[in-house]
Amino acid sequence: MKTDIEIAQECKLQPITEVAEKIGLSFEDIELYGKYKAKIPLESLKKFEGNAEGKLVLVTSINPTPAGEGKSTVTVGLADAFARLNQKVMVALREPSLGPVMGIKGGATGGGYAQVLPMEDINLHFTGDIHAMTTANNAIAALLDNHIFQGNALNIDSRRVVWKRVLDMNDRELRHIVAGLGSVVNGVPREDGFDITVASEIMAVLCLATSLTDLKARLSRIVVAYTYDRQPVTVGDLEIEGAITVLLKDALKPNLAQTIEGTPVLVHGGPFANIAHGCNSVLATKTALKLADVTITEAGFGADLGGEKFLDIKTRQLGKTPDAIVIVATLRALKMHGGVAKTELTEENVAAVTQGFANLKRHIKNMARYGAPILVAINQFASDTEAEIAELTRLVEAEGVAVSLTQVFEKGGAGGIDLAEKLTNIFSQEAKEFHYLYDLEASVEEKISTVVTQIYGGKKVNFSAKAARQLKEIEENGWDKLPVCMAKTQYSFSDNPKLLAAPEGFEVTVRELVPKIGAGFIVALLGDVMTMPGLPKKPAALNMDIDESGKITGLF
Amino acid sequence: MKTDIEIAQECKLQPITEVAEKIGLSFEDIELYGKYKAKIPLESLKKFEGNAEGKLVLVTSINPTPAGEGKSTVTVGLADAFARLNQKVMVALREPSLGPVMGIKGGATGGGYAQVLPMEDINLHFTGDIHAMTTANNAIAALLDNHIFQGNALNIDSRRVVWKRVLDMNDRELRHIVAGLGSVVNGVPREDGFDITVASEIMAVLCLATSLTDLKARLSRIVVAYTYDRQPVTVGDLEIEGAITVLLKDALKPNLAQTIEGTPVLVHGGPFANIAHGCNSVLATKTALKLADVTITEAGFGADLGGEKFLDIKTRQLGKTPDAIVIVATLRALKMHGGVAKTELTEENVAAVTQGFANLKRHIKNMARYGAPILVAINQFASDTEAEIAELTRLVEAEGVAVSLTQVFEKGGAGGIDLAEKLTNIFSQEAKEFHYLYDLEASVEEKISTVVTQIYGGKKVNFSAKAARQLKEIEENGWDKLPVCMAKTQYSFSDNPKLLAAPEGFEVTVRELVPKIGAGFIVALLGDVMTMPGLPKKPAALNMDIDESGKITGLF
Repeated sequence: MKTDIEIAQECKLQPITEVAEKIGLSFEDIELYGKYKAKIPLESLKKFEGNAEGKLVLVTSINPTPAGEGKSTVTVGLADAFARLNQKVMVALREPSLGPVMGIKGGATGGGYAQVLPMEDINLHFTGDIHAMTTANNAIAALLDNHIFQGNALNIDSRRVVWKRVLDMNDRELRHIVAGLGSVVNGVPREDGFDITVASEIMAVLCLATSLTDLKARLSRIVVAYTYDRQPVTVGDLEIEGAITVLLKDALKPNLAQTIEGTPVLVHGGPFANIAHGCNSVLATKTALKLADVTITEAGFGADLGGEKFLDIKTRQLGKTPDAIVIVATLRALKMHGGVAKTELTEENVAAVTQGFANLKRHIKNMARYGAPILVAINQFASDTEAEIAELTRLVEAEGVAVSLTQVFEKGGAGGIDLAEKLTNIFSQEAKEFHYLYDLEASVEEKISTVVTQIYGGKKVNFSAKAARQLKEIEENGWDKLPVCMAKTQYSFSDNPKLLAAPEGFEVTVRELVPKIGAGFIVALLGDVMTMPGLPKKPAALNMDIDESGKITGLF
Repeated sequence: MKTDIEIAQECKLQPITEVAEKIGLSFEDIELYGKYKAKIPLESLKKFEGNAEGKLVLVTSINPTPAGEGKSTVTVGLADAFARLNQKVMVALREPSLGPVMGIKGGATGGGYAQVLPMEDINLHFTGDIHAMTTANNAIAALLDNHIFQGNALNIDSRRVVWKRVLDMNDRELRHIVAGLGSVVNGVPREDGFDITVASEIMAVLCLATSLTDLKARLSRIVVAYTYDRQPVTVGDLEIEGAITVLLKDALKPNLAQTIEGTPVLVHGGPFANIAHGCNSVLATKTALKLADVTITEAGFGADLGGEKFLDIKTRQLGKTPDAIVIVATLRALKMHGGVAKTELTEENVAAVTQGFANLKRHIKNMARYGAPILVAINQFASDTEAEIAELTRLVEAEGVAVSLTQVFEKGGAGGIDLAEKLTNIFSQEAKEFHYLYDLEASVEEKISTVVTQIYGGKKVNFSAKAARQLKEIEENGWDKLPVCMAKTQYSFSDNPKLLAAPEGFEVTVRELVPKIGAGFIVALLGDVMTMPGLPKKPAALNMDIDESGKITGLF
């Protein structure tokens, strides 16, 4: 089989102007970035404000394993299937971070014949959104430290600065630093550190903002430090929310790209699915809903993390809940949940499928409680056997849930027709009422407890001494009516990455709470979350090259 | 008078496709970045390789003073004047750094009615070139530290890493840091620091590269560290020159913009004129020469710094020397060189003009020695009196040099017609032979001494103990045949910013030598050079805002 980059480079791209025409956007409505990428300015979106919204499909998955699930691949292939059925369809995806590209081979734009193009650009600088966020984040940091340096009128305690600098780079050397050294003219010495840009609150803010004005208001609310008497200091207190919004004016515009089959894709915003909410931007999803009859979108990691946050955080800003939820599973991954080692996945093992199904079963039950119809997509791999497929189909159908075998990696849209038809059938039925998991009026403690007991299947939530103190501070500052953003391992329902399938009776510990007031949620850290990755011993960068004609090799 | 941003926002921009047509580039030949910016891909340039090259005009100036010279303004206005005379003309300018925009009000795209547009974009993220360079620079840093962390096969002495990280931000807090703290999994503790991106060798490399292949070769030669036995370690030794070239593939393409009057402008590359060579990219200038009959370009700071480096460093890569050199002066600035305080510049003072002329006179003599014809442009200000103008005209003409009064700030191209006509007259005369200031075969010491005695008017060059040791190392490494890149104050011919006009008999001290083997020059540091600026007490960011329609205020 060809590699992803080989398939991508053999594909004849359509000019992005032609892709735009498919959803009613003229040359004047878009801003080109080269021939195959474009931004949709917010004034163009206003033209379509009156349009009725199309159907929304959320693609989520079981807990990821090293075997791979192919959630983005199914998302892309499903959209291409709808296009083959002559539906006006769009995809809304996250944009990938450049940092990891230097480290680990592999992009984030689908795979095989279900990819988003131009994949090299999307995985590198794309239209500059993440660089603009890096700049905005670091402008806040520089202006904050300059405020302290120039007299500190706001009485900021330099030991309580909570705003870190960022780079879109995997750079462990910058995790913990001491800055401001050298002499009195070189700043104020203090402990500091860098995160990767996609972990910045700026990313979450941009992805939840509904307009330039809302973006500015959210930026203004970001808490960057505390005073000597423990009062929060915001971007608004520094009087720089206008400047920071200026830096993000273009990054806020959704980016248009295309699938291998020419289906329009919005690739916009890419917050982490642990310390942030893990979904593409509200503006991109809203745009797709207004321009297309069917929008396919996905959420990061499994249904317990990205899925839950899509439903409890993003939809509240989007003003629209999904018309169907597709849960992607692979037999390989379920066999791992059933106890099979990665090296033995190619051998048939029906019993392991039966056992690993426990993971999928809990995700089905979890997603069903929100009220939207559920479908399971089995993303087929060459090594899957007929007996395994039959067993999984039987198990899913026994739950009263429709199941579809997809082959989009190998066949593109043709491999997703059955799934698209089953969804079309669902759309023709009467919609059920949507239920949020928790009420925003509940306390932060209750909201966390609801997620842990109702979604994760845990027994009890413990709070560290620090977290318990923070619960009180959050209430005192009036932040307790915000939704919670759970940060835990993606590999397990629990906070222990080794507990696969569907663990029960476990307790989790909230180590720390992080108020993200600009984004509008309270992050609950269950264990360590890595916000600045490192590079491996043999980084992917060592294999990359480009020739005089501009052809790239070794990127994927 | 209106502010620059008011004039810019009132101007009706031409679609960049129409601007491109003026120089024979079709829609297919360019890559749009929105409606008013474009990149020219290198394959389009190849189409015009066979074209004869047009005339090249270098715009330089006297030593800058706080009174302002308006070199970019004259450059832009002069091009508009040529356009009014129906000449096929282009401008080639540096692109500004975003960092200072947050600090000090004022852009770098000309002023008044002689500006480059869209000025907000050019002064912010533009087409992402500088962000790509930040990323490329920091990828080298992360991969280098990762190499040390993962076993250090190259035997790099972590105390002798000479590659700093960069941000396009004025951030004094990052000048001196200790990185790699936290624990054994978080890197190797060492002293480090950040520069502003435009001070990175990446910027100089990109601006001197003549193709993707040449870019890769130059990147490969960059020295990033030394081993425990003092041998240089390069990007090529790390085997990452391919990956870094991939990151710069789009940044290497020249950017097309326009003047207020619709004249095509290439805005590409912006190296510092102290620790680097201070000119826009070789590829942009070469492109303009191939596409237009007349190309107007400028070099940073005064003729002693940017001018000398344009002539001795850039033209060697460009393969073309200027057909004329314009030296810009203002009466205000010459009066400051003549001893007048900034607060008293509006009062007539002919004697100060006479005295301050010494500065211009030495620049005329310096530039004339290269062989290209010289012209002086007086960039007129409202406070200039007739007597002052008459005195300066008399003094310049007494040197046998033509002089032209330009009013481009107020009148756009109409204010530069006389200068354009005088240049046209020069072009009709037979070209004189061009003489480089020094022979590359001379020793580094000799080359530095030639610049100091022949251009600066100094008596003697001293070398610090460190610099003396470095002279030897440079010779041992075989780097001594490279040109020298002088880094000194821009305010004086000497290394003392207070010595205005035309000081004589002074000595200068070379504090340190920095081999920039990728760029292909040896930097000689005469005094401290700031490579990471700070923010002022009231940063410009505090005044910036943007409304829901996207209209920016307070940027300039």
